[in-house]
Amino acid sequence: MPERSKIPDPSLARLATVYRALLDSQRNGRKSLNSLDLQELTGIAATQIRKDLSHLGEMGKPGVGYDIGDLKRRIAERLNLSRRQKFAIIGAGRLGQALASYPGLVEFSFKLAALFDVDKKKIGKVVNGVAIQPAAEISKNLRRHRVRIAVLTVPASAAQGAAEAAVQGGARWILNFTPAHIAVPAGCVVRNVSFTNEFAVLAHFVEK
Amino acid sequence: MPERSKIPDPSLARLATVYRALLDSQRNGRKSLNSLDLQELTGIAATQIRKDLSHLGEMGKPGVGYDIGDLKRRIAERLNLSRRQKFAIIGAGRLGQALASYPGLVEFSFKLAALFDVDKKKIGKVVNGVAIQPAAEISKNLRRHRVRIAVLTVPASAAQGAAEAAVQGGARWILNFTPAHIAVPAGCVVRNVSFTNEFAVLAHFVEK
Repeated sequence: MPERSKIPDPSLARLATVYRALLDSQRNGRKSLNSLDLQELTGIAATQIRKDLSHLGEMGKPGVGYDIGDLKRRIAERLNLSRRQKFAIIGAGRLGQALASYPGLVEFSFKLAALFDVDKKKIGKVVNGVAIQPAAEISKNLRRHRVRIAVLTVPASAAQGAAEAAVQGGARWILNFTPAHIAVPAGCVVRNVSFTNEFAVLAHFVEK
Repeated sequence: MPERSKIPDPSLARLATVYRALLDSQRNGRKSLNSLDLQELTGIAATQIRKDLSHLGEMGKPGVGYDIGDLKRRIAERLNLSRRQKFAIIGAGRLGQALASYPGLVEFSFKLAALFDVDKKKIGKVVNGVAIQPAAEISKNLRRHRVRIAVLTVPASAAQGAAEAAVQGGARWILNFTPAHIAVPAGCVVRNVSFTNEFAVLAHFVEK
């Protein structure tokens, strides 16, 4: 589906932010919003929002704005948020456990399916309804539960091994929270999230 | 300093990734690297790395590559990593505590100076050498310790209040890990990190 990949990553991230604003607005009883309302709610410039939404095709009536239900459906459809997606977390340290309980993920249809750690003392502990399992069982369990998304929150030195076990279990989409660069077979997608990079980008703007 | 803002955010993030690879390589005893070595270490295309590094001015000799020490210094200088920068974390839940102990931050010269929470049971608990303090003291303590960078890891509903307390205490650079959009006075910079957005961008690539 070559058309799908045409939306650049920053637009996808902004569409996800807009999606969250729509969920909140709908909860507050609103039915429609225009791009200036969305600017107010998200901090993203109205012109940018209109540009991002243009990736979804024609929508919105001049002077009337966007129907929230319709816009929600179209973003969810395009971002694959319209059906439940299972994910596994490898590494049940503080970050892994924080992600396991992160409330926003449920609203985006992501469902924690498994949680792994090498630490024997952690095995069996329940986080957000899911018991921590031994890392040795990653491949077997991902395959059994048909989990295709794996989140890496292990130490950097364990990242490549964890990724390989996940891929062996059928995972194809990996969210890498470690600072390590991981190599995966063709057909797999890795998205790196680096806290230090986020700090570094911010620090660039700090006055000398 | 208008020249400083010319480097786009994605380049800054990639330069931070390159910086980490340089730290690792230096630890392993290497003295120089070329852009293909850096591609191997970071997963970023060599052509992209050369483009990002061009923001730092002339460097590297054809066929010889980059001197690691020199390149490290230049990136650190440009990203403001060459001097220690204090930061505070507001919200000492699992995510806040995970960030408080995140090992990579020290290597990037970021120093945890304070940690706050509203939960009385958490006050006084020591995380990474820093005792959790009551949220009521944010402004006073940030001012006393001259902390300019604040990290928000509170629930979304508490984000705006936490940001205002931080700004009142002199913070100007805010890393917002909550899904809430926060409004700050002119002169402040907010960088939003959204886990749900990271999942959503990844999910876009998941096969139907």
